Amino acid sequence: MKALVDGGPGNKSWETVALPDLVDDRDAIVRVDAVTICGTDLHILKGDVPEVQPGQILGHEAVGTVVEVGTAVSGITVGSRVLVSCISGCGRCRYCRKGSYGQCVNGGGWILGHLINGTQAEFVRVPFADTSLYPLPDAVSDESALMLADIVPTAYEVGVLNGTVSPADTVAIVGAGPIGLASIMTAHLFSPARVIAIDLAPSRLEAAKHFGADVALLADEDPERAVMELTEGLGADVVIEAVGTPDTFELCTRLVRPGGHVANVGVHGKPATLHLETLWIKNVTITTGLVDTYSTSTLLQMLASGQLDTAKFITHRFHLHEMMEAYSVFADASSTGALKVALTRD
Amino acid sequence: MKALVDGGPGNKSWETVALPDLVDDRDAIVRVDAVTICGTDLHILKGDVPEVQPGQILGHEAVGTVVEVGTAVSGITVGSRVLVSCISGCGRCRYCRKGSYGQCVNGGGWILGHLINGTQAEFVRVPFADTSLYPLPDAVSDESALMLADIVPTAYEVGVLNGTVSPADTVAIVGAGPIGLASIMTAHLFSPARVIAIDLAPSRLEAAKHFGADVALLADEDPERAVMELTEGLGADVVIEAVGTPDTFELCTRLVRPGGHVANVGVHGKPATLHLETLWIKNVTITTGLVDTYSTSTLLQMLASGQLDTAKFITHRFHLHEMMEAYSVFADASSTGALKVALTRD
Amino acid sequence: MKALVDGGPGNKSWETVALPDLVDDRDAIVRVDAVTICGTDLHILKGDVPEVQPGQILGHEAVGTVVEVGTAVSGITVGSRVLVSCISGCGRCRYCRKGSYGQCVNGGGWILGHLINGTQAEFVRVPFADTSLYPLPDAVSDESALMLADIVPTAYEVGVLNGTVSPADTVAIVGAGPIGLASIMTAHLFSPARVIAIDLAPSRLEAAKHFGADVALLADEDPERAVMELTEGLGADVVIEAVGTPDTFELCTRLVRPGGHVANVGVHGKPATLHLETLWIKNVTITTGLVDTYSTSTLLQMLASGQLDTAKFITHRFHLHEMMEAYSVFADASSTGALKVALTRD
Amino acid sequence: MKALVDGGPGNKSWETVALPDLVDDRDAIVRVDAVTICGTDLHILKGDVPEVQPGQILGHEAVGTVVEVGTAVSGITVGSRVLVSCISGCGRCRYCRKGSYGQCVNGGGWILGHLINGTQAEFVRVPFADTSLYPLPDAVSDESALMLADIVPTAYEVGVLNGTVSPADTVAIVGAGPIGLASIMTAHLFSPARVIAIDLAPSRLEAAKHFGADVALLADEDPERAVMELTEGLGADVVIEAVGTPDTFELCTRLVRPGGHVANVGVHGKPATLHLETLWIKNVTITTGLVDTYSTSTLLQMLASGQLDTAKFITHRFHLHEMMEAYSVFADASSTGALKVALTRD
Repeated sequence: MKALVDGGPGNKSWETVALPDLVDDRDAIVRVDAVTICGTDLHILKGDVPEVQPGQILGHEAVGTVVEVGTAVSGITVGSRVLVSCISGCGRCRYCRKGSYGQCVNGGGWILGHLINGTQAEFVRVPFADTSLYPLPDAVSDESALMLADIVPTAYEVGVLNGTVSPADTVAIVGAGPIGLASIMTAHLFSPARVIAIDLAPSRLEAAKHFGADVALLADEDPERAVMELTEGLGADVVIEAVGTPDTFELCTRLVRPGGHVANVGVHGKPATLHLETLWIKNVTITTGLVDTYSTSTLLQMLASGQLDTAKFITHRFHLHEMMEAYSVFADASSTGALKVALTRD
Repeated sequence: MKALVDGGPGNKSWETVALPDLVDDRDAIVRVDAVTICGTDLHILKGDVPEVQPGQILGHEAVGTVVEVGTAVSGITVGSRVLVSCISGCGRCRYCRKGSYGQCVNGGGWILGHLINGTQAEFVRVPFADTSLYPLPDAVSDESALMLADIVPTAYEVGVLNGTVSPADTVAIVGAGPIGLASIMTAHLFSPARVIAIDLAPSRLEAAKHFGADVALLADEDPERAVMELTEGLGADVVIEAVGTPDTFELCTRLVRPGGHVANVGVHGKPATLHLETLWIKNVTITTGLVDTYSTSTLLQMLASGQLDTAKFITHRFHLHEMMEAYSVFADASSTGALKVALTRD
Repeated sequence: MKALVDGGPGNKSWETVALPDLVDDRDAIVRVDAVTICGTDLHILKGDVPEVQPGQILGHEAVGTVVEVGTAVSGITVGSRVLVSCISGCGRCRYCRKGSYGQCVNGGGWILGHLINGTQAEFVRVPFADTSLYPLPDAVSDESALMLADIVPTAYEVGVLNGTVSPADTVAIVGAGPIGLASIMTAHLFSPARVIAIDLAPSRLEAAKHFGADVALLADEDPERAVMELTEGLGADVVIEAVGTPDTFELCTRLVRPGGHVANVGVHGKPATLHLETLWIKNVTITTGLVDTYSTSTLLQMLASGQLDTAKFITHRFHLHEMMEAYSVFADASSTGALKVALTRD
Repeated sequence: MKALVDGGPGNKSWETVALPDLVDDRDAIVRVDAVTICGTDLHILKGDVPEVQPGQILGHEAVGTVVEVGTAVSGITVGSRVLVSCISGCGRCRYCRKGSYGQCVNGGGWILGHLINGTQAEFVRVPFADTSLYPLPDAVSDESALMLADIVPTAYEVGVLNGTVSPADTVAIVGAGPIGLASIMTAHLFSPARVIAIDLAPSRLEAAKHFGADVALLADEDPERAVMELTEGLGADVVIEAVGTPDTFELCTRLVRPGGHVANVGVHGKPATLHLETLWIKNVTITTGLVDTYSTSTLLQMLASGQLDTAKFITHRFHLHEMMEAYSVFADASSTGALKVALTRD
């Protein structure tokens, strides 16, 4: 089959590789019907995620059809249309039993396209199939469901729920890429008074408004002053970091009101400075997190009923064999305007 | 009357000053029967808290007798024996209405010995008397109650409750000064499996054991390795920072398990480095806070019933007029072994 | 002045009474600019609330202008336009300090028009003015604010928040009178999948749809079967009782799914049967409550920003001197279609 | 093999039956090394639990050794010493994913000795072995672990945690049988001010004191008055129902303070009267529940570390073949003083 293989820093190729086989009784093999590319994949290709070994197939988001299951798989059947979640969970360890699949200590967590071969391929092996694949209702399209493999549950759990967005809150979201936009969308489930989007790029702020931002602020035009003016000098109730740089994180800690929450969603490669000399007295809560996917079923239900519209994340469409071109378009988002790309089976 | 007056960096004196008067209808004047010194007072005298103006009377902890109340004071009566809390709360603002008196936006919060004259004096004016003074039951001694002015509720709310200590948890407490010891004591209210104390000084670790630490680790003998060994490589469920330096805070973020809590109690004068490149994926919650005193009544009740024994914090006793000597003993804790000092009315 | 005076079971009159005076330093006297009638007032007039003494002025909801304040009132000034909350809170007792003003043990709670003279008068004395009156922003009309004296915070706190309505939930609301309608309106703040209204009267179900009910079920056409069909046989996540009879409460306990919540808002005069022989095993949470008004400020903010539209509750308008007629219209809701009436100063 | 077979109301026998076989790939067969009898078993034998069919083997608590596992079992191995939990959980359904195994909708929940053959036998088939059996550490004895099959997690989750016992609380526990005693024991994990035990039998109140009750009240000597006197007329913060009759439940609702919790643990065969005419205004939370076993691992850890001592529940010891005699002793607790009996492999 064909797959997108990491060739070490700066290199990748769409090449022929062996078909995946079942390794464990709890595995399933899934034919990939739709797949997307994540900002994290670009980080990996730059060498920022050293655990990824050259030769590995990338990708941790897909929708597909089950073609084979191990003998210990009981809830997933061959032929089912399924969401392949970015997180695999054993379902038995102390973390999985509390719904924290992202922190699975039995070999799960974020492994697809990271520690084992991923979804940017014609077929993928998915460990712990019973608790890592989600059968899809007919009412949900492949493309809409694809957004629930990673970005929507990540934004919802790690941003909105960790940040405890509540009715009448002022919510500031730093970064209006796909994760930031998904945070804007899902923050509205709790009826905040206003969602403020902050980004360097005017085009992303336009997208933010389209996804529900009430206020859009350019990051280089003193957003801190603007947020303080909107909140009588107190600061935002909830601030969501959706970029992953020291500067944006530090901005978040200046935007938050005493007693408020900073929910970090961004993937960071470097440490940030935590200004404890001002924060120690402010009753601030800072959370970090990899998505646990405890919300995936609920989000799927909202997708099926029409409460969420995730198809609008997808700005560009390709066939699987156009993977290299899709990467180019996605990596050059500032000129292509790409949010999420969708690649479907040829 | 006599009072301890801040004379600018490095200077202080026990000198004669004017008696305090009622300024607002909600004020009370309290005769100080017992007072103590806080590590924060030492910070102020070093010039670390620039809002404190020279000429100000220090001190934010006391037990005393009410001698005068303003016309708007309805729940506190002249002659009552009261705890003077380190926090004053207006009782009406959005923060006070949620029990967050420490963040009062109507002129309350930590003001005594900080923004207005404090308790290290023969008399003190206490604003918002109805919601800042606590009548004491007979069963509670002045000395025991004195520990509830600051250190016990601070350790309990900002350390133990913010950190969500739960039955069977492993709790690591970095710093075994008075706040660290109060954290050890109150962590046991939730039946953790073990409380691990970490400090540089063997004498403080001895005190930690006396206050209930199950394990005592020297800070310079690789406590991280020891904590990991005790927790099967996962880390502590809850880590409480009770020092206030970048190094100790950063140690806390290395000791915590995925999904765990770091509760900062220490007063910081400098920023710390937050290693988001490892923490972003770990589902960690970090909290900061000034005490809100929502627990003060509950702690008083536990004191009265004998559930808590706070008198053992007091290692040295003085009369009020020995204030300068008491400061010397307290400031030189490493050689005097002082934990908390108590000064009583002459 | 004129006031609506309870004359014992079945009797009431709009008569001349003495103007109220300040009794306590914390009191305020408010000129009533707008007032409404509550279903509870009808209960009182039937004799269902025996604590109400004949001769008492009824009413616990108003908007008005402050004309006098006691010496201990610090946050409310003469001339201010204010909401008179149905709940008075001392702001100092163990309940008030946790925001539970409804359970105040220092003489607060629901006292207006219950234990002391109420708001259906030209002037009213309000105890604990600082924590029982809410200054109104200009953007909020008297009529809109009037709905925040009781029904909206009651529905929100006791129904929606106690019931923990969450995104994607199925919420069943039994009773589509004013409290039921306010429950429907505020349940939507948490993006449930569907809100099901159940009532005996088709006209109330029409109103329910107008207030946001997605499904309307007649109470005598087996709503239990319909709810089960909509929820794959599980039952509703949250059920809100907004009537106050044994039958409707018992229906609620049949509609709820295992692990779900029944939030009782209705005022009951008789006991109900609790079918513990089926409920003991179902992990059900049942809550009761008088409104605490901890949400009143937040709701006012949502009103000011346009997030809530409460004016639509008001179906009939009168002048104060038409009080007796307003009672007639309100009491005969089934033929007049009255939801809430508003009476304004002549 | 031999097993205790339900012969319909009033009849039971220790008879020879077929050995159990694996039915599903996720099953395990466990040799029973230690087993006990539950009050629920007595209810079943009286005919109170009509789902139990004559011919069924009773028992839902055991410690044993795994002798065979299905092909889909991955975390449990032949030869392991395990706790057989009273609850089986599929680990995949919407309830199990939230740790609510007791409400499993895929064929789990309380099934052993209820819907399928149980543990009062030489061997037992356990469905969903991976998420229903708990490997035992060496430090834990069979007898101590046996108490974690049902009574200790039931008391802890459904009584103490549902009731939200907190430091300084007054906790009233109605019923001092095994579940009531386990509630007393685990309530102390949260440092309540006092635990009040209420029972009709002086001997049970003696046991209650031995398990940690601070106050013991005879149920027929006006315990309501005594609780009110101890709580300044307010009532208990938390009341735990550990009997299962209308009278005891109704007593609980009279003992609770405004804003407090009633946690029902008792198994009820009849409805109770809920006095909503007094409770509607009291902000009371009432919970019911079957144990979910989300706490079982934590309790096992506390057992291993010595934080809990559960062996003291066992008052009488037998060999398996003495099952009929053990039933007699257990059923006649009032004269034998039996709390829990332990039967071990011959």
